[in-house]
Amino acid sequence: MAAYDWITLTTDYGLSDGYTGVLHGVIAVRAPWVRVIDVTHLVPPGDVSRGAAVLAQAVGHLPPAVHVGVVDPGVGTGRRAVAIETPQGMLVGPDNGLLTAAADALGGARAAVRLTDATWFLPDVSMTFHGRDIFAPVAARLAAGVPLADAGPAIEPGSLVRLPEPIVEVGDGYLEAEVLTVDRFGNVQLAAPGTALDGLGEHLEVGGVRASRAKTFADGQPRRLIVYVDSAGKVALAVNGGRAVVALAISPGDVLRVTRSD
Amino acid sequence: MAAYDWITLTTDYGLSDGYTGVLHGVIAVRAPWVRVIDVTHLVPPGDVSRGAAVLAQAVGHLPPAVHVGVVDPGVGTGRRAVAIETPQGMLVGPDNGLLTAAADALGGARAAVRLTDATWFLPDVSMTFHGRDIFAPVAARLAAGVPLADAGPAIEPGSLVRLPEPIVEVGDGYLEAEVLTVDRFGNVQLAAPGTALDGLGEHLEVGGVRASRAKTFADGQPRRLIVYVDSAGKVALAVNGGRAVVALAISPGDVLRVTRSD
Amino acid sequence: MAAYDWITLTTDYGLSDGYTGVLHGVIAVRAPWVRVIDVTHLVPPGDVSRGAAVLAQAVGHLPPAVHVGVVDPGVGTGRRAVAIETPQGMLVGPDNGLLTAAADALGGARAAVRLTDATWFLPDVSMTFHGRDIFAPVAARLAAGVPLADAGPAIEPGSLVRLPEPIVEVGDGYLEAEVLTVDRFGNVQLAAPGTALDGLGEHLEVGGVRASRAKTFADGQPRRLIVYVDSAGKVALAVNGGRAVVALAISPGDVLRVTRSD
Repeated sequence: MAAYDWITLTTDYGLSDGYTGVLHGVIAVRAPWVRVIDVTHLVPPGDVSRGAAVLAQAVGHLPPAVHVGVVDPGVGTGRRAVAIETPQGMLVGPDNGLLTAAADALGGARAAVRLTDATWFLPDVSMTFHGRDIFAPVAARLAAGVPLADAGPAIEPGSLVRLPEPIVEVGDGYLEAEVLTVDRFGNVQLAAPGTALDGLGEHLEVGGVRASRAKTFADGQPRRLIVYVDSAGKVALAVNGGRAVVALAISPGDVLRVTRSD
Repeated sequence: MAAYDWITLTTDYGLSDGYTGVLHGVIAVRAPWVRVIDVTHLVPPGDVSRGAAVLAQAVGHLPPAVHVGVVDPGVGTGRRAVAIETPQGMLVGPDNGLLTAAADALGGARAAVRLTDATWFLPDVSMTFHGRDIFAPVAARLAAGVPLADAGPAIEPGSLVRLPEPIVEVGDGYLEAEVLTVDRFGNVQLAAPGTALDGLGEHLEVGGVRASRAKTFADGQPRRLIVYVDSAGKVALAVNGGRAVVALAISPGDVLRVTRSD
Repeated sequence: MAAYDWITLTTDYGLSDGYTGVLHGVIAVRAPWVRVIDVTHLVPPGDVSRGAAVLAQAVGHLPPAVHVGVVDPGVGTGRRAVAIETPQGMLVGPDNGLLTAAADALGGARAAVRLTDATWFLPDVSMTFHGRDIFAPVAARLAAGVPLADAGPAIEPGSLVRLPEPIVEVGDGYLEAEVLTVDRFGNVQLAAPGTALDGLGEHLEVGGVRASRAKTFADGQPRRLIVYVDSAGKVALAVNGGRAVVALAISPGDVLRVTRSD
């Protein structure tokens, strides 16, 4: 009996080449009953922390699945390829920090293996396309219910690579936090939880720009910067009818300061 | 017994964040038998009329389904969230004009409700992501066959917000019409039906640019503007091997004049 | 009994209009059991040779299927619409060279027909959207197991349009080859097989730029051009942490010279 009906994919492979279609194909050949959810394939090339944030924020809304993540600038080097078991699903991908926040969101890694058994892979493993040659076929086999322990030697979950915690500092009348993501709408998500706004009031300043506390986009006056708690529960910035990322001229990884402004 | 095997999605959520994958996930968890067709997620952010045109032109070729549309700049405000029943399927989304042209294309709204029953939603409804928290779970429940009337109080179909009718004027030797959409190829679709070209002859002028009547793209001389009836039955402009949108320097919403040129 | 459980799609229709969703809809209505794999819809508009390369390199990793290809600048003209049978699946699309490399990859065309039977098409065939009106419904019917011979008159497989063979020349201490594709990462794939690098050594020059032989991206010093054998077995160029297409300032169709540099 199949262990999972779903495999999800989060990659930086893009949609303009055949790479993503090939992942679907490799899964279809090996686990034809599985249905695939594309979380995104448009993680910026090689941007592991962006991929990690997108996957970690999506995973709680996905069905029980083998979640494959491939943002893998170290493909073909000594970096480990891993599979991780959590209480609510499995994760497969490179051990470069991409998967650990998602594992936390799924209840924590309770077992992990290094993928070394070549019988789980495509016959000829390339040096540059492990999504096709290793991660997709491993995901198909895990979805079929083959035990994790058969995929390779167990590794200590605590040894999995973790990205550095993003900077978040909450003080008297201010918060400072790293920009985690910028979405299609130009909305800027900070690493700080929404509760960090408690006590800062309605009138704010963000990176030197005046802003208002609001609940939703249309609460703000047109073109005015608003500070709100986004759908992932984090502090975020938006401009009603505009793009906060442009108004603030920032990028993911930058640190923004939000202060009370009376 | 399930009422619908298919849910379709038309949004401005883009493909670079996890939003679209999360919609798929919410549906998969609640209605695992349903298969999802992505009409598009690349409606320009907040462009309700573009979303309405894309959905209305696609819907006649889609299977019986619950069609979810989310282009929703007023998310979290007082705008109504609605579900609409037509003879050929259901529509779910914000009541901002996005859905009514599609309802017409499906035979007309014969019943509608305002979505107010929180037991149909995700437990915590955010102020900014009603696609995830309201529209996708409602669509899943309607696909399961739960009666529309259980989703909230009935509203008069005639009270649904409609976009203004696009400008179309046909006169002696000319037609004037609003630009409805510009597609990936730079082809420009006008709001006028193809029959509006009857009697205008072979030699035309469009916004001051000389053009020829043609049946298909390759009928035109390279780089020359052609006027044709497109696959949705509307008057459209193209340039063989080029982009009509550039040649004409127009945008959706502009009004173009096509005249006989002898 | 259905002949195929899968249909794949490779087009230049893009994802921002409803065209791709409509293809899915037409298939869902006519062959609801079929599952669809999107290889890509982002072939550059009208770029037949790019579409051919993407499909030919993907097809070996896809399940047995009816593969639909639509990159069709001659839509509505006299160019033939065809279906091709190979030992490992079927191909449907315009006879403009898009499908023949894929047919070769699937074991070679052993039969082909010209699509002329209008009962296989949508009732009203447009002049500009044969993907919707001809190719998708034909693919659905072939997936249902209706014999190829019923779709139209047999044509000689040898008469199918083939793209010109790309330029590849291997000489003493050099190779010259056409640029086949540039992928999302800016990696440049040449038409030459990986074996063409044998004997050229570790130190190379590519289009006047110094480069090193490498096995994978991270083998190269940051920003340094590397030459490697890619996941399709072809000679390719990359820049670790950069974009080879920019470093070399080339486009598909250009010819690059790789020489030994001692």
